[in-house]
Amino acid sequence: MIYFDNAATGGFKPQAVYDSVNTVTKFLSANPGRSGHRLSVAGANIISECRNFFAENFGTVSEKVIFTKNCTEALNTAIFGLYKTGGKIITTVYEHNSVLRPLKALEKAGICTLSIVKPENVDIVTAIKNALTKDVCLIVTTAVSNVTGEILPVNDIGKLAKKFNIPYVVDGAQAGGHIPLNLKSDNVSALCLAGHKGLYGVMGSGVLIIDESTNVRPLIYGGTGSESFNLDQPDCYPERLESGTLNLPAIAGLNEGVRYAYKNMDNFGNHLEDRTKTLINALSTVKNAVCYSKANRIGIVSFKLDNMPSVEVADILNQNYDVAVRPGLHCAPLIHKFLGTDNAGLVRVSLSAQNSARELSYFIDAIKNISSL
Amino acid sequence: MIYFDNAATGGFKPQAVYDSVNTVTKFLSANPGRSGHRLSVAGANIISECRNFFAENFGTVSEKVIFTKNCTEALNTAIFGLYKTGGKIITTVYEHNSVLRPLKALEKAGICTLSIVKPENVDIVTAIKNALTKDVCLIVTTAVSNVTGEILPVNDIGKLAKKFNIPYVVDGAQAGGHIPLNLKSDNVSALCLAGHKGLYGVMGSGVLIIDESTNVRPLIYGGTGSESFNLDQPDCYPERLESGTLNLPAIAGLNEGVRYAYKNMDNFGNHLEDRTKTLINALSTVKNAVCYSKANRIGIVSFKLDNMPSVEVADILNQNYDVAVRPGLHCAPLIHKFLGTDNAGLVRVSLSAQNSARELSYFIDAIKNISSL
Repeated sequence: MIYFDNAATGGFKPQAVYDSVNTVTKFLSANPGRSGHRLSVAGANIISECRNFFAENFGTVSEKVIFTKNCTEALNTAIFGLYKTGGKIITTVYEHNSVLRPLKALEKAGICTLSIVKPENVDIVTAIKNALTKDVCLIVTTAVSNVTGEILPVNDIGKLAKKFNIPYVVDGAQAGGHIPLNLKSDNVSALCLAGHKGLYGVMGSGVLIIDESTNVRPLIYGGTGSESFNLDQPDCYPERLESGTLNLPAIAGLNEGVRYAYKNMDNFGNHLEDRTKTLINALSTVKNAVCYSKANRIGIVSFKLDNMPSVEVADILNQNYDVAVRPGLHCAPLIHKFLGTDNAGLVRVSLSAQNSARELSYFIDAIKNISSL
Repeated sequence: MIYFDNAATGGFKPQAVYDSVNTVTKFLSANPGRSGHRLSVAGANIISECRNFFAENFGTVSEKVIFTKNCTEALNTAIFGLYKTGGKIITTVYEHNSVLRPLKALEKAGICTLSIVKPENVDIVTAIKNALTKDVCLIVTTAVSNVTGEILPVNDIGKLAKKFNIPYVVDGAQAGGHIPLNLKSDNVSALCLAGHKGLYGVMGSGVLIIDESTNVRPLIYGGTGSESFNLDQPDCYPERLESGTLNLPAIAGLNEGVRYAYKNMDNFGNHLEDRTKTLINALSTVKNAVCYSKANRIGIVSFKLDNMPSVEVADILNQNYDVAVRPGLHCAPLIHKFLGTDNAGLVRVSLSAQNSARELSYFIDAIKNISSL
């Protein structure tokens, strides 16, 4: 199969990721850091190693690196842990439902109001600036559109947030591993990452990275292996936000994956920019094809065929060509409304740096055939 | 190493668990059920298979089987999803901090009042009955004490809950795989399980099993791959409570583990009852040893040595004998207060059915030596 659904879950992992997941699953099956015995300590050490790497590379302290089950849990923890009752939250039409749905829940409960801005007539930073009022308690934006691969100006939004002293939560699901993000230099309060996409980890891994000076209320309460007599959740990090048994195998995999991603970020980014350019150029010659992406370092190219809904294109690609892409709305409804693609959806091709030129040219031929059906 | 910390995380997994985790990690790295392509569908099928097994064996419908990252997330989802504002919640001194801390958070926020009952002068069912008032909105108890291995009368508590029409949440972290629990026949509204203990799965797996007629508010909101245009969390299950990418490798492992546990439950239970009896009898002859467990099918035996804090006993066992046990409070402070063991804690030995008689007799000799230090 040709796997072009890497923005959902990365299809390729370096051998070190498989090896560490396997080894830990088989030989370190013990709760990390919950006892003083050899296995528990060895597991805790792997987790510390991973925490330290994220802290150093994302601009915070180790204890503010929180492991979650996925990016969605990280986003929910950040959003529900940072809003202020009665405040307004600014977000954008680019967002995934993992941002929109928790925000809508706050709005529906009458806890916060919501301002969803779009880059219409003005750029997205100006749109956010125009929505600023005194009661704004939180800004939440993605770093990269999961539909088009467009990179948002996180640094500029961060500057604005800092200027007005508003916490800024960034959805890094599609950005992590592809473009460098740094809480300090980008003025981000909380960055949410998926481990299993550009960071080359496995499913079951997510990360919430919190700025040194930002305090986040817990979403999940429970055993932390520390301060057992305290029936309140501990105030200290990471315990405050990490209750229950951590997913040691996934964290061990992520510990290898993130190093691989960071070592190769420049090369892989250049490579993906070239490949997306090739694909976009090819699509411009295909009858009925309309492309919604520009060349990008993420590897995402979305398009539609005027003669066929995206689900049908994807079905034919799967059944007749053994190619995996993702059709439909990609859990990000508002950007489709904005683009006018909410009826038939888009075919999203999400490449990894490991996909070959041959796979891409096979795909382009397939699309040419399908567009003529 | 001799691993007697199976109540934290099971040390042994059947080969089928390792194999399925490895295979899925390597060959099914794609989001289950988020697209129509071959890999996505194959992953979704494994998850359905696992959901169906839990539904059939725990007395509910498949869509009410929710996969979580651990038992703590399952408990938080059940508790925060079922309480009523202004109501009273009844729980017990047996509980783990994964129950006590979310409940205390509700109490501290002035949302619910809390009645924590203990089996003093009366049995635990009578203690719960005595705490019943008109405003009780929820009962939460564990099925098994994680400290002593004592099995609580879930069925009797369930009858009481049903009679007064109160939702009943059960913490099955230590019970799952060891004793049969059934939402229908036990009148349980929501059962929370850890995948990585008695169910022979890996870390990163937990299950929340909800009664057919019980509705639970979401704790985490996000993408569900369905109803993408709906900015409210979908009402249907499992989507309502399963946002973001599921941990497919862990669920694939659990799918094998739970079948192994259920096939062997009788044998393993008898075996562990014998082994705990042997250990308890042996401890009764050890100078300074006081045991707090009765023979049980869970495999847990907790004791103290009068001459040494539990942490020191565990340290010596780890360093001089290469034996892993867990000392201290085991994240369950109130049962230690009740037992009077809150100062020095207890040494918890948690056996698996795969621990050998030889390991146990080596351990007993070690304890005899340590008790004479």
